Amino acid sequence: MGPVTDAADLIAGLDLSAQAALGSGASFWTTKPIGALPPVVLTDGPHGVRRQSGSATDHLGLSASEPATCFPPAVGLSQTWDPELIERIGRALGDECRALGVHVLLGPGVNIKRDPRCGRNFEYYSEDPYLSGTLGAAWVRGVQSRGVAASVKHFAANNAEHDRMRASSDVDVRTLREIYLRTFEIVVRQARPWTVMCSYNRINGVYAAENRWLLTTVLRDEWGFDGVVVSDWGAVADRVAAVAAGLDLEMPTTGGVSDAEVVRAVRAGRLGADAVARAARRVVHLTQQVIETPSQPTGFDAAAHHALAREAAGEAIVLLKNDRDVLPLAPCPLVVIGEFAREPRYQGGGSSHVNPTRLDIPLEEIRRFTGEHPVDYCPGNDVGAAVTAAESADAAIVFLGLTPEEESEGYDREHIDLPSAQLDLLRAVVEVQPNTVVVLSHGGVVRLDTVGALAPAILDGALLGQAGGGALADVLFGVVNPSGRLAETVPLRLQDCPAYLNFPSESGHTVYGERMFVGYRWYDARDLPVAFPFGHGLSYTRFEYSDLELTPTDAGLSVRLTVANTGRREGREVVQVYAGLPRSGVARPPRWLGGFASVTVAPGERRGVEIPVSRADLAYWDTDAGRRRLEPGEYEMSVGASSRDLRLTATVRLDGDAASRPFTRESTLGELLADPVAAQTILTVLGAASPFGTDESALGGNLLRLLESVPIGRMAGFSAGKVTREQLDALLAAINAQRS
Amino acid sequence: MGPVTDAADLIAGLDLSAQAALGSGASFWTTKPIGALPPVVLTDGPHGVRRQSGSATDHLGLSASEPATCFPPAVGLSQTWDPELIERIGRALGDECRALGVHVLLGPGVNIKRDPRCGRNFEYYSEDPYLSGTLGAAWVRGVQSRGVAASVKHFAANNAEHDRMRASSDVDVRTLREIYLRTFEIVVRQARPWTVMCSYNRINGVYAAENRWLLTTVLRDEWGFDGVVVSDWGAVADRVAAVAAGLDLEMPTTGGVSDAEVVRAVRAGRLGADAVARAARRVVHLTQQVIETPSQPTGFDAAAHHALAREAAGEAIVLLKNDRDVLPLAPCPLVVIGEFAREPRYQGGGSSHVNPTRLDIPLEEIRRFTGEHPVDYCPGNDVGAAVTAAESADAAIVFLGLTPEEESEGYDREHIDLPSAQLDLLRAVVEVQPNTVVVLSHGGVVRLDTVGALAPAILDGALLGQAGGGALADVLFGVVNPSGRLAETVPLRLQDCPAYLNFPSESGHTVYGERMFVGYRWYDARDLPVAFPFGHGLSYTRFEYSDLELTPTDAGLSVRLTVANTGRREGREVVQVYAGLPRSGVARPPRWLGGFASVTVAPGERRGVEIPVSRADLAYWDTDAGRRRLEPGEYEMSVGASSRDLRLTATVRLDGDAASRPFTRESTLGELLADPVAAQTILTVLGAASPFGTDESALGGNLLRLLESVPIGRMAGFSAGKVTREQLDALLAAINAQRS
Repeated sequence: MGPVTDAADLIAGLDLSAQAALGSGASFWTTKPIGALPPVVLTDGPHGVRRQSGSATDHLGLSASEPATCFPPAVGLSQTWDPELIERIGRALGDECRALGVHVLLGPGVNIKRDPRCGRNFEYYSEDPYLSGTLGAAWVRGVQSRGVAASVKHFAANNAEHDRMRASSDVDVRTLREIYLRTFEIVVRQARPWTVMCSYNRINGVYAAENRWLLTTVLRDEWGFDGVVVSDWGAVADRVAAVAAGLDLEMPTTGGVSDAEVVRAVRAGRLGADAVARAARRVVHLTQQVIETPSQPTGFDAAAHHALAREAAGEAIVLLKNDRDVLPLAPCPLVVIGEFAREPRYQGGGSSHVNPTRLDIPLEEIRRFTGEHPVDYCPGNDVGAAVTAAESADAAIVFLGLTPEEESEGYDREHIDLPSAQLDLLRAVVEVQPNTVVVLSHGGVVRLDTVGALAPAILDGALLGQAGGGALADVLFGVVNPSGRLAETVPLRLQDCPAYLNFPSESGHTVYGERMFVGYRWYDARDLPVAFPFGHGLSYTRFEYSDLELTPTDAGLSVRLTVANTGRREGREVVQVYAGLPRSGVARPPRWLGGFASVTVAPGERRGVEIPVSRADLAYWDTDAGRRRLEPGEYEMSVGASSRDLRLTATVRLDGDAASRPFTRESTLGELLADPVAAQTILTVLGAASPFGTDESALGGNLLRLLESVPIGRMAGFSAGKVTREQLDALLAAINAQRS
Repeated sequence: MGPVTDAADLIAGLDLSAQAALGSGASFWTTKPIGALPPVVLTDGPHGVRRQSGSATDHLGLSASEPATCFPPAVGLSQTWDPELIERIGRALGDECRALGVHVLLGPGVNIKRDPRCGRNFEYYSEDPYLSGTLGAAWVRGVQSRGVAASVKHFAANNAEHDRMRASSDVDVRTLREIYLRTFEIVVRQARPWTVMCSYNRINGVYAAENRWLLTTVLRDEWGFDGVVVSDWGAVADRVAAVAAGLDLEMPTTGGVSDAEVVRAVRAGRLGADAVARAARRVVHLTQQVIETPSQPTGFDAAAHHALAREAAGEAIVLLKNDRDVLPLAPCPLVVIGEFAREPRYQGGGSSHVNPTRLDIPLEEIRRFTGEHPVDYCPGNDVGAAVTAAESADAAIVFLGLTPEEESEGYDREHIDLPSAQLDLLRAVVEVQPNTVVVLSHGGVVRLDTVGALAPAILDGALLGQAGGGALADVLFGVVNPSGRLAETVPLRLQDCPAYLNFPSESGHTVYGERMFVGYRWYDARDLPVAFPFGHGLSYTRFEYSDLELTPTDAGLSVRLTVANTGRREGREVVQVYAGLPRSGVARPPRWLGGFASVTVAPGERRGVEIPVSRADLAYWDTDAGRRRLEPGEYEMSVGASSRDLRLTATVRLDGDAASRPFTRESTLGELLADPVAAQTILTVLGAASPFGTDESALGGNLLRLLESVPIGRMAGFSAGKVTREQLDALLAAINAQRS
């Protein structure tokens, strides 16, 4: 007998009130015990375990928590483009959960980075759904391999902090399916998370927590999710509506208030008792799942986890620019400038805030590599001192970035500029020191046109977690060859961003007017220059691509190529596959990410790479048909080192899915005439009924072009009774029969 | 006894079937007679009367029609920025209607030019609602002053031809109110048209013809429209739903089919009999209105109307560029190049197509001005011949533009490029002839970066009507000093256009994702360069602006300034007033047109100009409150010669309208704390209930910033029962009472 049946048995013995009670928290962080089953403990994540101690309970990262490894937050982790690494981090997180008595770790956050101003972007992976979903799935596999539940969040279309508990994300279905739901779909289908966390916001006017289409039709009926839907903390405005929609667990506790509302609603016939039982059964089942693996009070291997955090941070660092091969640095007299070198910015503010087991200080880690050479340090508030120090050093490392006050969960930024004092500092330093390396720390994207123009070398550290200091030193001195890639476009200006004029919400609504043209899809479609493109990242070695081969498969497409390391160091290359369909019948971006792979290549070595691209990642969402559809056609497949550094391109013909739907009165003349079966019949019959008669020349090209948008049912009206609707319906039925 | 009562009496005597029958056409162009009242004759417009002869009936401009004056289509007329002139044209059109036995002239078309690709843009005025509405109202006043009904169209949000009979324009309410409905509101409120034509498309999913909110709530209840709503020809998919929504007259005839449907629906209780009677009464009333002024079978003064058409065309021509004062031309040896010089493109294709009373040929008109000097002509298909001719002339006039096949009612363009052969021709001519003048003919905007870079002088003729040839000659030779202004931005590239990626519709929906950022509002908000900005147009003289004064009035604002002609010719300057509110609480464009005025100034003369700007044209649509709201604040008012040639700017403080609404459970903590009355109470009461306790420091800045988006009702949930919803409601009621 499986656990689901157990759960059903257990529930059968409970009355309505007891069942309803299981659907909300017992406290801020726990569910209610059920008989012999203990309460489930949930805590914030995702880049570390925030297990609050004693009575401290908040969802805002304010009160203290037990020490735990602070891995790179998602903004850093995503820059690794390395699912295998992220799965290993997931396993380590699972181990820490078991050591800290945690059953559900609230992550991963896979929302799309729609606009750089979103205060919570540091908790999310990317502007691209394939990349986000693939990395999020790896995280879930890792955590759950340890018997700890993941909670993929925030479901769905939660892409801003402003008015986040009321605002409706107004998004058309195709965009939802291709972008905002797609990340969740990949995670749910690939990694089967035990829980999903619904978001605060509304979607097309309906709260996520009350959105039956979202929580039941799409999530369960289509994607096969069979776990618990838990609310974000405080996201339930109407528990009764939420239970009806498919929410299982409201968090945190409401002191019994909402449980009583559920009971009253069932008694009044406004809510089915089966919905309450179903939710309770799922909560019980989750409890059974998470207690199967006992906790591990002996603790976790903090040193090993710190080393893993350093490995991840090393892969996360993106070498944005490296003129004159300024990097890597040889040991030499150095000056390090900027507060972030001494007090690193390594994670974001809010519910994900972790109390790290230890913390690498970049300045100290740099000093480990310089041997006998002096390393001067200036905080940077005194530009004169920094200039003087930079003049007398062989190279300068300038730490720039955003302070915790400038970005956090809970509010959005209003601009994406670095503080102007930092740019002034950099300008002064670069003037006297040509070997200046900029190290960037930030949760959200910052404008980099000035930095890019001034500095010969730039390392993008985003947020790197507790071992970021060591990892930066590794990359600065070439112990690690940088291989990170941008998971988000760095635009030239905020005014170029897709959602610039539709962010934040207004009057409780956010119009997703850019539709699926998010991130690089927008910049490419509008042919806009950017500071650094999606997927960009340099290396200390060079890679050459050759031998591109495309082979259609049942699953989609296999992309094969050879990558050669033509430089002098071993390195990891993130090979990216972009798909395009220039003659698509619907609006599509010029290219989109269809797959990627890491390949580590020794100097002089050539490695074959095979990257599968699934049908789903080539298809678009056919809104009329209510399903994903692979268009037949010539697909243009490119492989490259970034979305704007495409090295090889080839085309492949895919048969795709038919689009045939039966004709109705709403079908246009143009649609009918485009169909060989329908065309002949329609021309004959309607010619007789047309106000223009059957004149061959009048029915020629120009007239047809003018008339092609007329629904055929409306032609019946035009015919002034000569063709009745009944006759037309019979005609259409005959045509449909002939075609099928 | 007024005509409305007459109508009511007349209707009272008719049974349901007879009443229903009055709600649809008797034929393609006529309503049904009612007793002694004759049928009403409707015809296509708006830039001329398309009275079809005999049995010819189509709505596509295909069959022949009676000769009538072809005035400049809206694309040309709008470039005059001259309501007084347009009102005179309206009067002339009214006279022609009376001469041709027409009671209702189907115009003006005041839809917003949302995207340059819309095939019907030539029939519309502008990308700006204030300009469109002001010009449309003038047209209506003119036509109706002659006892002929106007029919302002296409109501509403009909901004593309693709799939026009099915596609839904999905637009948020604020955008509808500020942009797409605003033009109609101005026309309805200012000029009281006797009919409004509803459009083919859906609006947010509901057909315009069946949209009760549109046809009744907004049009009649709010704007006070009391005339007939007539369907666009064939726009009614469901007559019963349409009558219920407020449609009065379905056109054309349906041979009684839809009348019978109405009768059946009333009998089955699905439609109120009063709705049918009301529609019939309005149709009868319209009939009474239009037959009050007898028709004028003696004809109209075709020569005078041709002269008026020439005057209008002269004002419509925009001098885009005039390096080295190449224009005006002195009589000299000339070469004229291009087919449009011999076969002018002067109107658009489709239902508005007019059979002109005569037609000026540009080449012939030019030859009238050159005296003894030779005027060579080359069609341009032989580049070599054109170059040879250009070499031996003193100046070249090159006619470029779009052929009728490239743009029309019924379909949209796919790009905005001029044919490349034309650009090659121009390139070759300019190489040998520095004094090259380009004359442009087109219905929709064309890309002009190449033309702008090549030609020292450009005249934008858009479409100028039957007298355009003479008017062009007038301007070329300086008989008329050009004063036209662009009513639409000329973008550098199609990719820069606001709706580039959301045009045309897909799966029956068009997402108006750019919201109110249409036209120059978009280019300015995104800080994009353009080829020629909205409002641009040069003169053969120079104007200087001074003495800007802003005075708040009850109606809004009075803008006063002085315009001096510092050149050597008399000229008309179109002074434009742009408003801005840099610190607006909602997203607004940097500036928008608030008013404009023509002033004709003699050389050396200074003229005072006063331009009123109404409160409505400074306000935004407050979606929450469901009304227009003038924000209090410092308005930045600029006057200039174009949207990017602002000569003077000053600010004025306006008190505006309060925004105060009662607090509810959905009000956020941030909203409550921003209110001085509410803040104190809330901090005290919720501090006690908060999971963070009453700790002063915890309730400090950072926490509040994180919590400000929490709806206060959700805090009650968070308090785990310590504050009940009932207690909260009482608290809010007390706060609301204190505030009011």
